[in-house]
Amino acid sequence: SDNETEFVIPGASSYNGLNLVPQMGWNNWNAFHCDVNETLLLTTAQDMANFGLRDLGYNYIVLDDCWSIGRNASGYLVENPEKFPSGMKSVVDRVHALGFKFGMYSSAGVLTCGRYPGSLGHEKADADLWASWGVDYIKYDNCFNQGQSGTPKLSFDRYKVMSDALNATGRDMVYAMCNWGNDDPYDWAYRIANSGRMSGDIYDSFNRPDARCPCTEAIGCAWPGFHCSVMNILNKMPAIQSRTMSGYFNDMDMLEVGNGGQSDSEYVVHFSMWAMNASPLLIGTNIGTLSPANLAIYSNPAIIALNQDPNANAAVRKWRYFVDPDETGEGEISLWTRGMDNGDKVIALLNAANTTMMMNATMNDIFLDERTAGAYREPVQLRTTWDVYDLWANRMSEEEASSILNGNGTTMGRNVTTPTRYNATALSYEDGLANNNTALLGVKVGTIEPSGTFSAEIARHSVGVYRLRPQPTGSLRKRDEL
Amino acid sequence: SDNETEFVIPGASSYNGLNLVPQMGWNNWNAFHCDVNETLLLTTAQDMANFGLRDLGYNYIVLDDCWSIGRNASGYLVENPEKFPSGMKSVVDRVHALGFKFGMYSSAGVLTCGRYPGSLGHEKADADLWASWGVDYIKYDNCFNQGQSGTPKLSFDRYKVMSDALNATGRDMVYAMCNWGNDDPYDWAYRIANSGRMSGDIYDSFNRPDARCPCTEAIGCAWPGFHCSVMNILNKMPAIQSRTMSGYFNDMDMLEVGNGGQSDSEYVVHFSMWAMNASPLLIGTNIGTLSPANLAIYSNPAIIALNQDPNANAAVRKWRYFVDPDETGEGEISLWTRGMDNGDKVIALLNAANTTMMMNATMNDIFLDERTAGAYREPVQLRTTWDVYDLWANRMSEEEASSILNGNGTTMGRNVTTPTRYNATALSYEDGLANNNTALLGVKVGTIEPSGTFSAEIARHSVGVYRLRPQPTGSLRKRDEL
Amino acid sequence: SDNETEFVIPGASSYNGLNLVPQMGWNNWNAFHCDVNETLLLTTAQDMANFGLRDLGYNYIVLDDCWSIGRNASGYLVENPEKFPSGMKSVVDRVHALGFKFGMYSSAGVLTCGRYPGSLGHEKADADLWASWGVDYIKYDNCFNQGQSGTPKLSFDRYKVMSDALNATGRDMVYAMCNWGNDDPYDWAYRIANSGRMSGDIYDSFNRPDARCPCTEAIGCAWPGFHCSVMNILNKMPAIQSRTMSGYFNDMDMLEVGNGGQSDSEYVVHFSMWAMNASPLLIGTNIGTLSPANLAIYSNPAIIALNQDPNANAAVRKWRYFVDPDETGEGEISLWTRGMDNGDKVIALLNAANTTMMMNATMNDIFLDERTAGAYREPVQLRTTWDVYDLWANRMSEEEASSILNGNGTTMGRNVTTPTRYNATALSYEDGLANNNTALLGVKVGTIEPSGTFSAEIARHSVGVYRLRPQPTGSLRKRDEL
Amino acid sequence: SDNETEFVIPGASSYNGLNLVPQMGWNNWNAFHCDVNETLLLTTAQDMANFGLRDLGYNYIVLDDCWSIGRNASGYLVENPEKFPSGMKSVVDRVHALGFKFGMYSSAGVLTCGRYPGSLGHEKADADLWASWGVDYIKYDNCFNQGQSGTPKLSFDRYKVMSDALNATGRDMVYAMCNWGNDDPYDWAYRIANSGRMSGDIYDSFNRPDARCPCTEAIGCAWPGFHCSVMNILNKMPAIQSRTMSGYFNDMDMLEVGNGGQSDSEYVVHFSMWAMNASPLLIGTNIGTLSPANLAIYSNPAIIALNQDPNANAAVRKWRYFVDPDETGEGEISLWTRGMDNGDKVIALLNAANTTMMMNATMNDIFLDERTAGAYREPVQLRTTWDVYDLWANRMSEEEASSILNGNGTTMGRNVTTPTRYNATALSYEDGLANNNTALLGVKVGTIEPSGTFSAEIARHSVGVYRLRPQPTGSLRKRDEL
Repeated sequence: SDNETEFVIPGASSYNGLNLVPQMGWNNWNAFHCDVNETLLLTTAQDMANFGLRDLGYNYIVLDDCWSIGRNASGYLVENPEKFPSGMKSVVDRVHALGFKFGMYSSAGVLTCGRYPGSLGHEKADADLWASWGVDYIKYDNCFNQGQSGTPKLSFDRYKVMSDALNATGRDMVYAMCNWGNDDPYDWAYRIANSGRMSGDIYDSFNRPDARCPCTEAIGCAWPGFHCSVMNILNKMPAIQSRTMSGYFNDMDMLEVGNGGQSDSEYVVHFSMWAMNASPLLIGTNIGTLSPANLAIYSNPAIIALNQDPNANAAVRKWRYFVDPDETGEGEISLWTRGMDNGDKVIALLNAANTTMMMNATMNDIFLDERTAGAYREPVQLRTTWDVYDLWANRMSEEEASSILNGNGTTMGRNVTTPTRYNATALSYEDGLANNNTALLGVKVGTIEPSGTFSAEIARHSVGVYRLRPQPTGSLRKRDEL
Repeated sequence: SDNETEFVIPGASSYNGLNLVPQMGWNNWNAFHCDVNETLLLTTAQDMANFGLRDLGYNYIVLDDCWSIGRNASGYLVENPEKFPSGMKSVVDRVHALGFKFGMYSSAGVLTCGRYPGSLGHEKADADLWASWGVDYIKYDNCFNQGQSGTPKLSFDRYKVMSDALNATGRDMVYAMCNWGNDDPYDWAYRIANSGRMSGDIYDSFNRPDARCPCTEAIGCAWPGFHCSVMNILNKMPAIQSRTMSGYFNDMDMLEVGNGGQSDSEYVVHFSMWAMNASPLLIGTNIGTLSPANLAIYSNPAIIALNQDPNANAAVRKWRYFVDPDETGEGEISLWTRGMDNGDKVIALLNAANTTMMMNATMNDIFLDERTAGAYREPVQLRTTWDVYDLWANRMSEEEASSILNGNGTTMGRNVTTPTRYNATALSYEDGLANNNTALLGVKVGTIEPSGTFSAEIARHSVGVYRLRPQPTGSLRKRDEL
Repeated sequence: SDNETEFVIPGASSYNGLNLVPQMGWNNWNAFHCDVNETLLLTTAQDMANFGLRDLGYNYIVLDDCWSIGRNASGYLVENPEKFPSGMKSVVDRVHALGFKFGMYSSAGVLTCGRYPGSLGHEKADADLWASWGVDYIKYDNCFNQGQSGTPKLSFDRYKVMSDALNATGRDMVYAMCNWGNDDPYDWAYRIANSGRMSGDIYDSFNRPDARCPCTEAIGCAWPGFHCSVMNILNKMPAIQSRTMSGYFNDMDMLEVGNGGQSDSEYVVHFSMWAMNASPLLIGTNIGTLSPANLAIYSNPAIIALNQDPNANAAVRKWRYFVDPDETGEGEISLWTRGMDNGDKVIALLNAANTTMMMNATMNDIFLDERTAGAYREPVQLRTTWDVYDLWANRMSEEEASSILNGNGTTMGRNVTTPTRYNATALSYEDGLANNNTALLGVKVGTIEPSGTFSAEIARHSVGVYRLRPQPTGSLRKRDEL
Repeated sequence: SDNETEFVIPGASSYNGLNLVPQMGWNNWNAFHCDVNETLLLTTAQDMANFGLRDLGYNYIVLDDCWSIGRNASGYLVENPEKFPSGMKSVVDRVHALGFKFGMYSSAGVLTCGRYPGSLGHEKADADLWASWGVDYIKYDNCFNQGQSGTPKLSFDRYKVMSDALNATGRDMVYAMCNWGNDDPYDWAYRIANSGRMSGDIYDSFNRPDARCPCTEAIGCAWPGFHCSVMNILNKMPAIQSRTMSGYFNDMDMLEVGNGGQSDSEYVVHFSMWAMNASPLLIGTNIGTLSPANLAIYSNPAIIALNQDPNANAAVRKWRYFVDPDETGEGEISLWTRGMDNGDKVIALLNAANTTMMMNATMNDIFLDERTAGAYREPVQLRTTWDVYDLWANRMSEEEASSILNGNGTTMGRNVTTPTRYNATALSYEDGLANNNTALLGVKVGTIEPSGTFSAEIARHSVGVYRLRPQPTGSLRKRDEL
């Protein structure tokens, strides 16, 4: 009978039901590396709550490598008592009490990258321990993997062991693979993990090539390395664009905004393009020393809403031209677009060249995919007039950001939103967009007519990010498949 | 004794006896993607019969992804009752009644590309179900393959399971692999399948490079991707030319003619070069909105006869020069040749540059392979005078095509052929060629003398396709081996 | 005790004791492909004896693909009775009676390249059958290999099965792998085979690039293909130079000399460079239609002696410059050197550019390896004066060659050698060189002093090949290791 | 209870406790190849003690290939009695008596590269034999590996067998993998070996490209080959820089200094850059014919102290520009930096171009990694003033070196150090540096202020190596993780 039938329904979902939009939060590695301890975690969590970051969606506190001191005789990892004198369970409880989830780190190898004990061969014991501590999230690295790589099957089999172990605990834990894109996980990781790094480690540089990050493409990269710049990582994304999906996100690595190696406009590019590509947004700086300008970047609700859109797709790079290199030898401009779940379209005009550029986005380029996807009928998008909203127009002022950082952020109550601030705990981004909340829409700066072109002057190492919203005429078909 | 000897005879054959010439038909994906239902399939089949397409050889109706709603408790797939309220078996029966065969889709993974249930691990149940429904053809995709790729052996072993399951049903089902050329199936797929995709998915563009289709060669392509243009796919073929053979065809993907993204002459290139390369010819547009011009392309019997030639070889690209790029940055001209089973030779002068070109095909280039294949004796082809027939000269007029689309195609009876129309159900292409049927030969436009050159002016983004037929002097040797 | 010790002695040897110098003979494929029969083999053998080719060392008659008609009920291959009405055993016996050894062909796949039954899974039965027929040599191809490739281990394991089966018969059979260099056999094949193809199939062209032969390097070539030119194959050799050794030769494929696709000087290059690189020398043309000029190329004893030198090393390409391309777009010059077992050095100045060149070989370049191999002491070679012999100076005249082809070659008795002719059956090349036989030394054309340079004018698409012989001063150390 | 807990402590360590800094010593291969015997080893050891090399740290005498004569009936290797008439055990004892450790060679294949018996399949017997002889070090090659490569797992599994066998003997033996970087051991070898070759074999050339060394990058090199120049090997290091660590060193191959193929300044580059990259330093020339100039290179304590620094990191190539090629077609300049364990920084300005260059190192480039590693706080290094010491300024004079080579080196007692000489047996490099020993510091040539630049004129094919030492202001944080 029908009630004996078990159906699998496609669409927004994941292998374990978690992480339908990209995870957001904070991770200590980029700023602190191994200098971790419970005070850092708890102070950071308290600051993030105070500064409104938690209620913007940054709700994971992730402890990275170097937290253990070894395995005990029973085979369980032991936290370093000097760094975590209260014990990890207590730290997790207190982080939970502040309204956050808690993440930890290990490696699918015999050692972690910092040469602490790894989880390869200890998956069940480690997953059970983390579950017993109340952990919500595991970042799982790839160092010292005993050569168990080189074909997708070897990597899949190795990473699946931990996936199964986490599932077997019965506790919901987001599984964040960190195998740097080795063996091209884009066709196999969706069924065992919630996100997957697709590059070697980021470093705090906009576009400087570094010999330690030898690949310029994600696919077939035999040595992901580290010291990969923002532009290096960004340009590895287009080939794998279709392999970002609800429940599995291509992780471009943690954010460097605030670490001092880039200009303000470069950090805006970094944050915007991570958001455009549905990358996890994990703050990677010292919250305690955050500048007003950097808080204003992390706190742009219009950009976060783009990142957290339920369509869960990465952006498409429609064109890229190599022009006008800077002192690193690099120079390019590009157009990126991404469709939103409600039919909006977001475009980014990225100027990574050395001088200001007048940049154009034509309707034909913006809606290329609609035009070429069986377009025996003219796509409605090309017959639509679109309003254009600048998503950075309402960037929080330094004065306002300073006020928040100085503890005067009294307006951050649960139900308060302003053109510059938003509380997603109180009102979801989806609902806010449906209500035309100005904090999510920025400022209307123009319209595009059918067959028209949108133009904007974009400064050196800057980006313009615009949400196109159809004037109320057509009904836009959604794509629900690859 | 001799009668105990089982002999294997080489030549035109396939591992399962099917598909000795490339399959032809219609597939819904390019135009409709997941928007499928039984009405679409049945209406399309009726239109194809009415418009003469069925009798030109387009006799498979292939239903692509998104038809199921899950697996039932017995482990069998269940069709989506909203899309197929009559049940799939009934749909198949009615398609059969219209004179067509019926094809379906699944993936050699745990999910299809649209994230419906896949067949990996369920091969026997799925093959049995399809056989019970009367299915004649399986397109078998590569999404969500659990990392079972990376060496030819991993892909071979995975695809062989379904091959064996289909064979075990006892029903004839063409097995169309769709692994995008991963792990270079050109040396291993012939023994388990009837065709194999050799590229990422096509999109409706003549030659625009797209970052989502990163490879320009078929061999060793680690990320076939999608959004591959006609010219991108075409130029992946020459290296693997020898691995097209009777019973196993390199599938260049479904035709975009009619979907609006290319000019009329570009669609002529697309259709001609797919035919030249013995690719399956699967119409990928909405038959119900087909324009007269596009019907005239799909309905050229002279080009279809070339595609369906029993020699079952792909064309050889004799030369290629990069010249005169257009706005996409691409520009090239090339000469392609293909030997026919009856000793004819077909040549294509392809102008994918930005301006009209006077193009030349010398006898030395046309017959290069004959000259260099142990040519201690001068090949007879170089001592022959050839008549040259333009295979597009008899293209159906828009008036005639309109008449057919308007239901006035009363001349399409079984035994009627004209210079523009052909009924292959009544008279095979082989017999038609033997009778010098004008619908298959086009119009004679010249001759080539020994050591001569054929020249033609070819417009931008166009192709000239010519059948060379020997004047009755020599007897041409056929090659029957690799 | 000592007499219980089994010692392994390095040096000139092979895994099965066979083929210490490169095999020589004739193979039907290049000229006849599948058009084979017993008359062709026997007539060819008789002609080769008559024309002196057998006594120059061409003593294998190798029957390539398409000889079988299937497997019988006992699992044994059956020869095609129309092609071999006397039965294969009888053909082998008669070839033996003419003073030749007999070679056959199969594939390490389920089908041969011509789609006849292959030996994968039938290795023991097939090896036993060949041994029972008296076969001396197996060429073992790579078509239809069921995906058993992609790592060296997969190819090694597959090819080893036949190696073991041949050994188990107890009959000496040279094992000639033909896997086109797939999976880089250069580190693993020496222990299981006597030679190994290192490229896709040759075609009769000097340097024309062809899309069907996509690789320009042997290493990591995922698609060896076919239609590889002489220059393409030649330039794949330098990287793997060290992996030619006594008992295992890198096989550059069968010779095209005589097939009509190249000029006389291009054929001289082809033959000379195959000899320089210790490639097997298998004549690939129709012996019955051999021209005097081509017989003169195949019959140059000075070049054959170079090929058959017991040092069994390939040549080193000391330099290569890209210059002056011809109509194919290719143009280059290069210097190649090879050390001989007796301390001689052979150099080749190759002009594959479009015009005549004055070319130089300096002592520093010729003896680069001696200079850089721990040269804390100045190598004796650089302190030596060398006599220079032109190895093509005594090329047989067309008159003399015509006389031989016309059956007037009465001087070809066992003990006759002249400046142009040699009988290696009567006097080994090693002994001839020790005796300063003029047929092996060519003509002295100069000397090179210490720190000197040898110069020669080399015509377009030609090569000068010179043997350097030390004037009787120093004693040259031989290298006996990798 | 706590005393049941077994802790793993990260930091300076190795899988077997050995080789925490790079091994130093002598290996016969580069100069003598297979021409080995006991006299050579013992004479060399005596000379190395006499010339002060042993007490500079060169304390391994490594016997390379060609020492055996086969396996005996019990399966044990037997030393060649002609080369080692005293027996290997006796040789080892006498080398030990001279104050050295003893190393030997085998291959993870069925034959060594010189085609003597290999250890694949005989690991236990061979390790036991070596332990019984008192061997301290095994160089383990990759020839004739039966195709057991092609994925990291295949190579890891093969090399691990010997690692386990060596451990099982109970004797401390350094395990020096020599698989030429095949299958990218950089992520897997640290847990099974003490060093690993990362390139094909060196030859005595500064920068001449050779077709037999086809790769220019270490990663993914399918054919490491041999005849790799100093500059070729050096430039393969930056991508894998992070995979040098205490206990596992990327081995750049043995030193050619003294073999005559390079100029004095080129040898200085060779030695300096090997030291900068924490490569093993194995002298590869004939000690008996060492020139004063070459002894002065091998004997620079300031460079050796850099190599032996406990931080055990490789240098970082901060920039590289291609300029001004020489006659080989190669020309480049580059800046390399390396952090020391005590907070010093060493920089190398390398001029591999064809003319003298004024070269600059800015503070921003030198401390790039500090600036970009979470630099929300300005790194103290950029606020520090640094003293600059030229590490080649105190190079031993030819007169002094001659005196030592002539046996007049009476000042080489255990406790004597001078500005040019050092006895590390008596005073460790670490203690010497702590004491500001002038032999380790060279000569102060300047200072760099915060945000300053250091400039130096560097001659063609030369290098300047400078130790930067902070003026006593800041306390520099050490990094203890990857």
